Amino acid sequence: MVDTVSDNWIFAPRIYVENVRGHDPAYEVTTEAILRNLLSVCRPAELTCRYSDERDMEALQRADILVAGRLDTALIASKAKSLKLIQCTSAGVEKYAPFDWLRASTALTNASGVHADKVGEFGLMATLMLHERVPAIATKQRHHTWTRQLRGLAAGRRVLIYGVGALGGAVAERLHATGFRITGIRRSGGSVAVVERMTTPDHFHEELSKTDILILACPLTPETRGLMGNREFAALPPGAGVLNIARGGVIDHAALASSLESGHLSGAILDVFEKEPLPTDSRLWDVPNLMVFPHVSADAPDGYVDRCLAILADNLERAKAGQPLRNEVDRQLGY
Amino acid sequence: MVDTVSDNWIFAPRIYVENVRGHDPAYEVTTEAILRNLLSVCRPAELTCRYSDERDMEALQRADILVAGRLDTALIASKAKSLKLIQCTSAGVEKYAPFDWLRASTALTNASGVHADKVGEFGLMATLMLHERVPAIATKQRHHTWTRQLRGLAAGRRVLIYGVGALGGAVAERLHATGFRITGIRRSGGSVAVVERMTTPDHFHEELSKTDILILACPLTPETRGLMGNREFAALPPGAGVLNIARGGVIDHAALASSLESGHLSGAILDVFEKEPLPTDSRLWDVPNLMVFPHVSADAPDGYVDRCLAILADNLERAKAGQPLRNEVDRQLGY
Repeated sequence: MVDTVSDNWIFAPRIYVENVRGHDPAYEVTTEAILRNLLSVCRPAELTCRYSDERDMEALQRADILVAGRLDTALIASKAKSLKLIQCTSAGVEKYAPFDWLRASTALTNASGVHADKVGEFGLMATLMLHERVPAIATKQRHHTWTRQLRGLAAGRRVLIYGVGALGGAVAERLHATGFRITGIRRSGGSVAVVERMTTPDHFHEELSKTDILILACPLTPETRGLMGNREFAALPPGAGVLNIARGGVIDHAALASSLESGHLSGAILDVFEKEPLPTDSRLWDVPNLMVFPHVSADAPDGYVDRCLAILADNLERAKAGQPLRNEVDRQLGY
Repeated sequence: MVDTVSDNWIFAPRIYVENVRGHDPAYEVTTEAILRNLLSVCRPAELTCRYSDERDMEALQRADILVAGRLDTALIASKAKSLKLIQCTSAGVEKYAPFDWLRASTALTNASGVHADKVGEFGLMATLMLHERVPAIATKQRHHTWTRQLRGLAAGRRVLIYGVGALGGAVAERLHATGFRITGIRRSGGSVAVVERMTTPDHFHEELSKTDILILACPLTPETRGLMGNREFAALPPGAGVLNIARGGVIDHAALASSLESGHLSGAILDVFEKEPLPTDSRLWDVPNLMVFPHVSADAPDGYVDRCLAILADNLERAKAGQPLRNEVDRQLGY
């Protein structure tokens, strides 16, 4: 948390923006975007906008605020000693854990929440697809096979969402509106309006047996790595479907492939993988009743940068008022 | 329309039910289903329930009401001369046109509307899939190809629904709730609450150019056969998607394949075909960015028969009251 309310940096910060050359321009944080979003809350004393291959080291050393999609943690630790606030334009920061590189005087905030509308739509689509058994229909199409298996209504089906944060919560809202019955699992166990029943990770195994469709939407942490293995897939009822919009490391993919090949699971939709792009020779491409999505569930380019910078603007206001920041990463929990 | 209010048949009808042996039991109209749904509105004088391969010709000749999924029109014309009402348990009756086999004294009603919830869910799913370019992602998966092409929000995209009857209207409701902008085309041009703009078939071509996703949901009639040909696909903007939940004959499939192969259309989802099951050697199985569904968009087995018989029960009440029947097929329009 930013600790001094009166600091001049909040009102006239030195801002350093780092982009990655060649990335999708929709995600580039431009000078114009900074001014458009921040001029109402501060007057930057300095604004430097560079690609990571043309760094202005002196400007970075002086900077109060760093805005970046990818963090060079070693460089930040050794050089960017004035930083009060790092706004990461990605929601997942697990690759920067442990956070021993981060000074106590520097707050790290992520882009959690900017994905809500997009992931809500994607989650609804993918859940309806799993209910309708679209992954199996797509596999059958490869073999020119017509099997008419009528499915009842999606409304009323039981969905278990592991991780009801910004992503899982947005999906839960859409599913609730479509009539799905939702159970949620989150560390705090705290209730969410659209989630019929909320419970904690220690009840995960018993919940699996009551689930038609499982949605993984948690951050990747030491606790969630390898969450779904042989035992967990077996605990799902026959015919269950699985959607992963969390991180690839949450699933043991060999166990998933077995559960699909045996016919125990009716289908799976994966949007995230341990290695992305998924290598051409990965066996996952050809596992029956498995659909591979190229990590598109949560990113809508339109307005992405503005939504990220709105978090930063909000946090400058909060810092002025001495309030806790929004989206500050907990160094222990890792998200 | 049933012409005499006082007729005894309405209160004590002779009912003949014909099922097709070997069909999905969820669609079988049983004696129990008839009694469960009709006892509150009539006391059947006779109730005969047979498969089509074991007909009771005498009972059929005496029958006032025929309930059947498939109609043997020649047999009905020559033998079932007492029929006042035929309740077809299918929504599409185009295969029985022209209706010269149907006596003026016999009303034909279809099952239009029993599919609303199911087709609403399916239509929402398929429209979200076309927006997200899932058919292209599935085609790329066959080739182990990862192409990350981020899509903006589905909300706000322009959907054109051709045929805003029971099916198209149900889809329109779901899409409206998800934020799509909907234009409808229907013969009457009459407004529907969730449809932003309603127009008539003569404006079809100009509407195509303003469409992101086209949904075909009309009955198959002489006017709609071959509705979508080379010229119409070309009139859609580059990147448009097409969903067909109407009938296969509405589309010229060679023209569709060309539009997909050239990349002009981004994808198509077909649930209906001129010949079903789609033959193993059909080229459609392998057209890029085309997903083949085995005619599942509108049928949910749970409660199907009860929803059909509720139409019949309602119509017996209407006949008693001398009111027009619901779902009566117009012999000229063919639906």
